[in-house]
Amino acid sequence: MTTDKDLNTTSYDKFKANFESALSKLDCNRVTDPFYIIKGLPEDLKQSSSPVYLAGGMPHESMFPFKHVSVKYRDAPGSLGNLESSTIKEGESYNSYDIPLYSEGSVKNQQSDIARAFQYSENVGLESLREFTRQIIKKVNTPIYDNWDVLITSGSSDSLSKVCDLFVDEDTTVLCEEFTFVNICSHVKYAQGSCVPVKLEVSDDPKSQGIDTTYLSDLLENWSSYYPDKKKKLVLYTIATGQNPTGVTQSLEKRKEIYDICCKHNVIILEDDPYGYLQLPKYNAKDPLKNPYQDNTITLDVFCSKLLKPSYMTIDTEGRVLRLETFSKVGSPGLRLGFIAANTYLIERLSNISFMTSRNASGISQSITNNLLFELGTRYQKEVDSKASMIDGWFNWCMKIAGEYTHRRNVLFKAIHETEAFKKNYFQLLEPSCGMFATIVVNMKPEWISSDDKTKRKDQIKRAMDYLLCCLLETGCLPILGYKMTICRDFSMDRANFLRITFAKAESAEIFEQGAKNMSAAFERLNEEYMTDKELWDLPATGLVGM
Amino acid sequence: MTTDKDLNTTSYDKFKANFESALSKLDCNRVTDPFYIIKGLPEDLKQSSSPVYLAGGMPHESMFPFKHVSVKYRDAPGSLGNLESSTIKEGESYNSYDIPLYSEGSVKNQQSDIARAFQYSENVGLESLREFTRQIIKKVNTPIYDNWDVLITSGSSDSLSKVCDLFVDEDTTVLCEEFTFVNICSHVKYAQGSCVPVKLEVSDDPKSQGIDTTYLSDLLENWSSYYPDKKKKLVLYTIATGQNPTGVTQSLEKRKEIYDICCKHNVIILEDDPYGYLQLPKYNAKDPLKNPYQDNTITLDVFCSKLLKPSYMTIDTEGRVLRLETFSKVGSPGLRLGFIAANTYLIERLSNISFMTSRNASGISQSITNNLLFELGTRYQKEVDSKASMIDGWFNWCMKIAGEYTHRRNVLFKAIHETEAFKKNYFQLLEPSCGMFATIVVNMKPEWISSDDKTKRKDQIKRAMDYLLCCLLETGCLPILGYKMTICRDFSMDRANFLRITFAKAESAEIFEQGAKNMSAAFERLNEEYMTDKELWDLPATGLVGM
Repeated sequence: MTTDKDLNTTSYDKFKANFESALSKLDCNRVTDPFYIIKGLPEDLKQSSSPVYLAGGMPHESMFPFKHVSVKYRDAPGSLGNLESSTIKEGESYNSYDIPLYSEGSVKNQQSDIARAFQYSENVGLESLREFTRQIIKKVNTPIYDNWDVLITSGSSDSLSKVCDLFVDEDTTVLCEEFTFVNICSHVKYAQGSCVPVKLEVSDDPKSQGIDTTYLSDLLENWSSYYPDKKKKLVLYTIATGQNPTGVTQSLEKRKEIYDICCKHNVIILEDDPYGYLQLPKYNAKDPLKNPYQDNTITLDVFCSKLLKPSYMTIDTEGRVLRLETFSKVGSPGLRLGFIAANTYLIERLSNISFMTSRNASGISQSITNNLLFELGTRYQKEVDSKASMIDGWFNWCMKIAGEYTHRRNVLFKAIHETEAFKKNYFQLLEPSCGMFATIVVNMKPEWISSDDKTKRKDQIKRAMDYLLCCLLETGCLPILGYKMTICRDFSMDRANFLRITFAKAESAEIFEQGAKNMSAAFERLNEEYMTDKELWDLPATGLVGM
Repeated sequence: MTTDKDLNTTSYDKFKANFESALSKLDCNRVTDPFYIIKGLPEDLKQSSSPVYLAGGMPHESMFPFKHVSVKYRDAPGSLGNLESSTIKEGESYNSYDIPLYSEGSVKNQQSDIARAFQYSENVGLESLREFTRQIIKKVNTPIYDNWDVLITSGSSDSLSKVCDLFVDEDTTVLCEEFTFVNICSHVKYAQGSCVPVKLEVSDDPKSQGIDTTYLSDLLENWSSYYPDKKKKLVLYTIATGQNPTGVTQSLEKRKEIYDICCKHNVIILEDDPYGYLQLPKYNAKDPLKNPYQDNTITLDVFCSKLLKPSYMTIDTEGRVLRLETFSKVGSPGLRLGFIAANTYLIERLSNISFMTSRNASGISQSITNNLLFELGTRYQKEVDSKASMIDGWFNWCMKIAGEYTHRRNVLFKAIHETEAFKKNYFQLLEPSCGMFATIVVNMKPEWISSDDKTKRKDQIKRAMDYLLCCLLETGCLPILGYKMTICRDFSMDRANFLRITFAKAESAEIFEQGAKNMSAAFERLNEEYMTDKELWDLPATGLVGM
């Protein structure tokens, strides 16, 4: 049992004692002993207080070609079908902020400047940006324990790569939602570990959505019968909020249950949360374009305290959770900027990996982001609430982005609901609670999946999905096949009769409408042609080769 | 023998056949099979020419907060002691360039824009920046063979990390100059390989400078007697131009000799060249501030064709050279931006590593650099030479940076020449041909290094150097100790009686003058106190503990 007192005294040393054995065997090989560090000086040495620095090969900032950066930014994301003009017109005014050569005066600690950010800098990230990200964590996901920190990374792919480097070796198994962002497997496989699937409940019911806890518990209680050849050195990789590809979100109750199971079996939890800020209010088929964000019925306070889902960090009594966030979805993917929050021992180990690989995330990316957060915070305080926290401006922007995704979701859903194929019940449209993806579950005719043999049934599902894909490509709609996002196809093929579609990228409502129509046409063809004499193409019994 | 005809037909397949066995055993574990790739489609499928894209989770660019970036840049680096004011004054005009939301018209392929660069993008880097870096390679280091390419990385540390990931496993040994940028060892050790030192000739003679080829040849001919336990799977890591820390540069003749040795023994060559553009004309003690760059006696053509030293790529008939460049020294370190040039097979393997780690270098860093190169190129064509190549503007900037480093070198050297300790011959100042570092060789009194025992002599050298370090810290001067930059201290301690100093970072000439004085004071103390009854501090016989 962890008591409150334990929590307050949870220290670096305790984290080290508890989690050192969870690290990859190779991690201790990452010995960094920078040549410029001076050690062992005599105690009575009287060091000069201002020595002339002739050591490191750092160019003076006057040698940088860059003198000043100015950024024009949006007050709100462009609205679908009503996008802003592509260029800044002479005389048009936009709000802007700067990255000066030197920050001065009272803003020095919050506003990043060229002299610092464009120089060699800290492996853990620029201190001002770290402080902003700490505030992001604190505002909506305050950890229970004190001794946590953040590390700025070069985006979530970099975070995943570093975290896998830290934990995974040939003894490690990473438990994954059976459908997931499968790139995780490449990282794990390269580190010589393996991934195993955990059953996922994909439904419209908020309580049951997400990892099947009965399955998880049984799996861990009976690990050696499930996987007799695998050691029980485990990491759970979970996208708990707005799961990719299914869009489901774990309830807080479910998170607590999963957390307890992980504690019992000493499982490290990697909580990847790229989509969490894109909260989507319930779709209303009777008033399809209704958007509570635009009606102003969702205030910033409601957004932060009611809509955003609490991270595993808020229930983490032991420091076994690593939370991965990214600026790709609410900022820009090209920033290649994200962060990891975790206990200080793990952050230190991750920082050591940074030192040996990318050193630090781009200083330009860090400063352009840092100063945006600073600008938005300052402006929010000035224009909306003088007592607001500096980070509120950023959450206000995140809320606007969520509002625009809600609008995009509405437009696409409305278009899909109006299609013939939807009306004919050729598929179900599952509503995501969050994120940028929705799930189209293909209703299979019984005669398509008729075999009594399990393996053959799976082939039949795959072949039908592949036939649908071919139709989609001809009618003009490009989704992702659910079965391409399985950790173990054999384990999940029974449930892989779905498509992932996104409402992220289109420029106009017309495109979504066209996409829905083209999708509908493909479903009509599937239902008319498949397994009849109208069937086109000579698809093998197992569907497309190589897929 | 490779004939001209072979060179012209050197293909990806041939590179693969020749170099696949040089890769790390783990590289083939890096299997990436993105879930969005569609394979095996029937030949008679009639794909829609404009399908609606509902696949990837890419935010539309109108969701990015950034609308327009404008950068004020310098025409020339700030001059030591005459730095520009720290802030842009109202009304002051600077040249500037933009990163627009959308590039349009004729500049579309050369000017990077927010819509592309701030989005998810190519693992190999933005095509426009890749093309600029290809031009950088072609202009001064045209490879002999055709089938080479470039990969944009997140800076040289990232390049080193990726290249070590690619080649090094427990069977690999990386041959290094005995004094070098020792961070390479961390990468190699982590990949479970080892580093061994190669003797370096550090002298003022341009012909003999650099790797001792007699030693190298003997080492490789008699590998199994030198290192009976190590397989002969070898990589050479060399900083051929303006070596770190010694500042020496290999002559072209020496490079050819080394290249032939590497071919004979199937050694991969990693040519790291962070300092190559910082060419320093000969220092003239009689006219110490003479700077041929400022006299305009060095034209761009002279700079490019005479001063810049030819890369190993220019003599690489087999495709075994990987050239590492960085934008840190002539751009800004905080860009975290560099590139690797190599044969197309190796570039493809490196790109695969990118996909699995950082994905791509920051799009903001890439676009701010790309558009600077575009701006400088366009302006150079307009103002100087309408027939110039687009990349000449960048080389012109590099030349100005080299000019400023020459000035900084002059100021520091003048100051050092004027010190008492220099006049008393307490040390020698070795002149670098290139880069930002100089070498101070400590003249040791015979009585300091008096032991007949080899090991004890090495301890005596270390102790004297540590005593000097203590004096330096008290008098106020912070250099790097040569022995901290050894691959194998035991191998090199005899030759490690030197300091590395830099003329990169100071703000003013006064600081260099103060640094020289403080250094001189430390040398005076060393010579007065060391091994006399005036000796301070109770240094152990092996010098500072832990150093």
